[in-house]
Amino acid sequence: MRVGVLTGGGDCPGLNAVIRAIVRKGVQEYGYEFTGFRDGWHGPLEGDTVPLDIPAVRGILPRGGTILGSSRTNPLKAENGVRRVKDNLAKYEVDALIAIGGEDTLGVATALSDEYGVPCVGVPKTIDNDLAATDYTFGFDTAVNIATEAIDRLHTTAESHMRVLVVEVMGRHAGWIALHSGLAGGANAILIPEQRFDLDQVCAWVESRFKIRYAPIVVVAEGAMPKDGDMVLKDQTLDSFGHVRLSGVGEWLAKEIERRTGKEARTTVLGHVQRGGTPSAFDRWLATRFGLHAIDAVRDQDWGKMVALRGTEIVRVPLRDATTQLKTVDPRLYTEAGVFFG
Amino acid sequence: MRVGVLTGGGDCPGLNAVIRAIVRKGVQEYGYEFTGFRDGWHGPLEGDTVPLDIPAVRGILPRGGTILGSSRTNPLKAENGVRRVKDNLAKYEVDALIAIGGEDTLGVATALSDEYGVPCVGVPKTIDNDLAATDYTFGFDTAVNIATEAIDRLHTTAESHMRVLVVEVMGRHAGWIALHSGLAGGANAILIPEQRFDLDQVCAWVESRFKIRYAPIVVVAEGAMPKDGDMVLKDQTLDSFGHVRLSGVGEWLAKEIERRTGKEARTTVLGHVQRGGTPSAFDRWLATRFGLHAIDAVRDQDWGKMVALRGTEIVRVPLRDATTQLKTVDPRLYTEAGVFFG
Amino acid sequence: MRVGVLTGGGDCPGLNAVIRAIVRKGVQEYGYEFTGFRDGWHGPLEGDTVPLDIPAVRGILPRGGTILGSSRTNPLKAENGVRRVKDNLAKYEVDALIAIGGEDTLGVATALSDEYGVPCVGVPKTIDNDLAATDYTFGFDTAVNIATEAIDRLHTTAESHMRVLVVEVMGRHAGWIALHSGLAGGANAILIPEQRFDLDQVCAWVESRFKIRYAPIVVVAEGAMPKDGDMVLKDQTLDSFGHVRLSGVGEWLAKEIERRTGKEARTTVLGHVQRGGTPSAFDRWLATRFGLHAIDAVRDQDWGKMVALRGTEIVRVPLRDATTQLKTVDPRLYTEAGVFFG
Amino acid sequence: MRVGVLTGGGDCPGLNAVIRAIVRKGVQEYGYEFTGFRDGWHGPLEGDTVPLDIPAVRGILPRGGTILGSSRTNPLKAENGVRRVKDNLAKYEVDALIAIGGEDTLGVATALSDEYGVPCVGVPKTIDNDLAATDYTFGFDTAVNIATEAIDRLHTTAESHMRVLVVEVMGRHAGWIALHSGLAGGANAILIPEQRFDLDQVCAWVESRFKIRYAPIVVVAEGAMPKDGDMVLKDQTLDSFGHVRLSGVGEWLAKEIERRTGKEARTTVLGHVQRGGTPSAFDRWLATRFGLHAIDAVRDQDWGKMVALRGTEIVRVPLRDATTQLKTVDPRLYTEAGVFFG
Repeated sequence: MRVGVLTGGGDCPGLNAVIRAIVRKGVQEYGYEFTGFRDGWHGPLEGDTVPLDIPAVRGILPRGGTILGSSRTNPLKAENGVRRVKDNLAKYEVDALIAIGGEDTLGVATALSDEYGVPCVGVPKTIDNDLAATDYTFGFDTAVNIATEAIDRLHTTAESHMRVLVVEVMGRHAGWIALHSGLAGGANAILIPEQRFDLDQVCAWVESRFKIRYAPIVVVAEGAMPKDGDMVLKDQTLDSFGHVRLSGVGEWLAKEIERRTGKEARTTVLGHVQRGGTPSAFDRWLATRFGLHAIDAVRDQDWGKMVALRGTEIVRVPLRDATTQLKTVDPRLYTEAGVFFG
Repeated sequence: MRVGVLTGGGDCPGLNAVIRAIVRKGVQEYGYEFTGFRDGWHGPLEGDTVPLDIPAVRGILPRGGTILGSSRTNPLKAENGVRRVKDNLAKYEVDALIAIGGEDTLGVATALSDEYGVPCVGVPKTIDNDLAATDYTFGFDTAVNIATEAIDRLHTTAESHMRVLVVEVMGRHAGWIALHSGLAGGANAILIPEQRFDLDQVCAWVESRFKIRYAPIVVVAEGAMPKDGDMVLKDQTLDSFGHVRLSGVGEWLAKEIERRTGKEARTTVLGHVQRGGTPSAFDRWLATRFGLHAIDAVRDQDWGKMVALRGTEIVRVPLRDATTQLKTVDPRLYTEAGVFFG
Repeated sequence: MRVGVLTGGGDCPGLNAVIRAIVRKGVQEYGYEFTGFRDGWHGPLEGDTVPLDIPAVRGILPRGGTILGSSRTNPLKAENGVRRVKDNLAKYEVDALIAIGGEDTLGVATALSDEYGVPCVGVPKTIDNDLAATDYTFGFDTAVNIATEAIDRLHTTAESHMRVLVVEVMGRHAGWIALHSGLAGGANAILIPEQRFDLDQVCAWVESRFKIRYAPIVVVAEGAMPKDGDMVLKDQTLDSFGHVRLSGVGEWLAKEIERRTGKEARTTVLGHVQRGGTPSAFDRWLATRFGLHAIDAVRDQDWGKMVALRGTEIVRVPLRDATTQLKTVDPRLYTEAGVFFG
Repeated sequence: MRVGVLTGGGDCPGLNAVIRAIVRKGVQEYGYEFTGFRDGWHGPLEGDTVPLDIPAVRGILPRGGTILGSSRTNPLKAENGVRRVKDNLAKYEVDALIAIGGEDTLGVATALSDEYGVPCVGVPKTIDNDLAATDYTFGFDTAVNIATEAIDRLHTTAESHMRVLVVEVMGRHAGWIALHSGLAGGANAILIPEQRFDLDQVCAWVESRFKIRYAPIVVVAEGAMPKDGDMVLKDQTLDSFGHVRLSGVGEWLAKEIERRTGKEARTTVLGHVQRGGTPSAFDRWLATRFGLHAIDAVRDQDWGKMVALRGTEIVRVPLRDATTQLKTVDPRLYTEAGVFFG
């Protein structure tokens, strides 16, 4: 048996841990051989491969990024894409494919598996933690730790200068990173894409903090938006999914808070540092277990499935279900967090 | 309503986050007042209290330890212990008690609640993660992160000198910290209390690592024990629970490995650094949510219950069930990890 | 003897360590009393004070920011500023003043000491490390560590996506943070305010990196500027010192690199996270020693002096000399670093 | 020109950064070729080499340990050692040798250079920072950061349980790590090899801390010793230098403090975690600069010299002077730190 492996979409701490676990168990326990496809679906589409064996995965557990490279290439949108993928799998004698990626990457795996008979197994990856079928995805815990450490640091600057500090974290469609890091970092307001925020309310929280001689931290997900009327339309852009979004909600928010409350406000946009570097212990553990269970699914020829975390167990779910539903922040959780606002 | 709060047993990152969440929600949403009892059950037993209000919990979220202090005092073993506790609760007009602690501390809460009618709610705390009723306890993730970072560091020393490095981590009765940090740190052997280890097998793993010109890391839980015959009896001591245990299994193991394989071996005992200092983001989040749900249980007068994590939900379970069952490492999980040994 | 203490300018990890050392040694060894002035020179100007004794400095060693608060208030520019300061010192019976701050804060101390006979001692503080009289200032090492850790993280994202990552770090007039973190982080180009950069050269470095299948990291100080002609004038603004500077050189650079090389480029602006949070061990050590030596200077009535680091020794230098000369990056050092570019 | 490079003695964060800088500058600017000798002086003695070129040093900057391996082999003590080294240098056509190491490794380089005409340049390495000729050695800052972080963590455990925590850090002959991490971590006593400690004094410090309801941290260098009479002789051993030393001064101290003060005391021995893993930004910077200047010394044929840090400058000093004098903690520095004891 020869198994192909690819990683697609944005990079995420833990990808290498998944790859290592797949290869270690596949070679040692099942005697499989592996082919690495380079840069996501670009690899099978163009026949771009790298050797993938035990020496290739040595020492990669603690490293961020992916040794296989990544891209957003979609073979379903390429001319004769499915045929070229199938031809290349045949050419490299690849009997099964493990695709590690998010909504887009796994969407392709779903189609190839369900509609075109390509034997695929999926491993979910989204740093935003917004996939419905799994309790957590790897990379998320690392991102939350990095954002929390940044918020810890910003508190002292806020206090020393009695300024508002706005921290923009990742999260276009779901506010998980904002919610978790905001709670862990002791933020005085958390703004998420799931609930349009009321600028007057935000300013009220800010001012109540100053009244007790403390300085507020506002954590805002990049996809958060104010209620109608608060936003100047020309600041809006369309993102790659065609949704309207603010360009730089953090900057905009700091300016508005400053204008309305008269308090100095500053923004920090954490950006790419949230998704790079060595994974947290939790993410290494989760990614490793995902890898071990993905290769078990291959052994079981359980095609069209994705591994997922439920409680402390790794389970398999249909790829089709997994990739069609966004997991957004439950309003009850957001309300629960509200006790710390202001 | 006046609510008493105490923390018992070994300290654990996240205790302060629980206390803060209880007080913030209790005061702001329910209008409760609070009394802090000092040093676990010593507080209600001796009437030793500290003020506990919103200013008292400011800034404590990121801090390790507990502002209330801790001890292993057991009022059930003290003369007239139950009576003295009840008298002190009456004296301080405390209507309900939230006990944050492990097996022992919550065992007292169970007895007081079930047998003596003291209105108690429990919050589980064990850095070893060995409580059956909850998926995770706070503090565990921090400990695993610290141990993993230490293992990361030790790899480079092992490689540079081609030595065996034995890392002894916490875990008297359960090997969760060893298993998680060993997997996350890429250890070449993980030894846990749940399964007596075979020294010949450990030495075989060690030697197979040297054969490919790499140096091995062995992670051993403090409560791990070799199979019969491997251990010199005079090295054994009885722990406080009356169980036989090795004093310093890490040191012993390094000496034995050195003697049998002829390779230099060194031990690092991580000790107390694993349980101190600022909690990880996950532990702050979990501890905060435990606190919020504990005060909700008080509001619901749901006595004799403990908050627990199930998947991503906080639930309530009977204190009695929670404190009587140790959660040990599932043999399947340990077998799963074995692919990385050697 | 009663000694006043104030902290001015931007906050910086280590300020609290200085304050603590001053108070501990002043009280314990010399029997002094202390008055804390709030928010830099605002404190003596307006008579705004806080108690400053041993309990007040407990536990502050590892904390970022300043318990005294800070501001950029300049009493020399306030109406009757000098008189009001002198009146308040008399009112609070303050016999000597220790000013902890940068060019501006210490400039005031110099004038008060040299021209108006106010007994002042200075402690240098600049996160940018750009004060000529001292080898290092506290806060700088922390900032460099934070920036280096961010660069470490960004490498994996750059490699996974074969993108250029531009990291904008602090440094308006001097490139010390860029130089040190760029070297420590293995950057492929480092751009500093002391030397206008050649965009063609930067693009050449970027492209040479891609040629060997690696992705480049470009570290740019916020005050770095391209050579004439490379910059669109309307992007320029005047900073508070009246100098022309780019607003957002990092963003601008990424766009230009993308336009010229056709490679995807992204920017991360580290911003305030570089100056907040717990100080590194080096900064705690340096700040503590600065504090101990500052109170010794008070005891010696050695007014108009500033403590400074020379090698491993703390020395005293005239405040006047210290605050008039910017320490910029030596061209030889920059050339030395050039071996790693490209 | 072909240059040999070796690393000897205990591993130390920054070794790889030195190697990388030597090779990058040597190849790119001077057109040199390199031979890596494996495991310190074992390499030239036995003719054990590894390829050393630009691809070999890629990605090693942030990694601890040494890609060349290390050992304590001393060719001066081997039969025909000098001749074998010279023969192997001739065999591999190595024209010059850069030795990176401590007292022992550089002592060999001194003899080879001064007495046997082997063209050698030295780079100092000692994690203990105890070499007289240089202000700092790389690795030291990393060790101090790790020890300080551990002390930070232990504070919260000490406070929560009102226990004495003894932290044993590295430093056989010099107390630099103890002094710096103790000061940076806010220890209540620091014990160093340079000054025999008085156990009564230590207990007095411990008790004064409890009197104000705080718990003490005692930092002790592994080579620290009590005054005569305090120590049971059978606990003593001879170290490899023939000096009497305590085996486990930390454990011994905790027991004695417990016995004398009646307070619970615990020990943490940091051990090898202090010397492994990724170097701090300062150490990467210093190590990189040492490497750049070492290859410059080779180009200048300035044999028998060692690079060293003086203030912020890298200078060259005679190897002979550098390796014969231990840099111990100046008593004035130790006295200065004493203000924080108790």
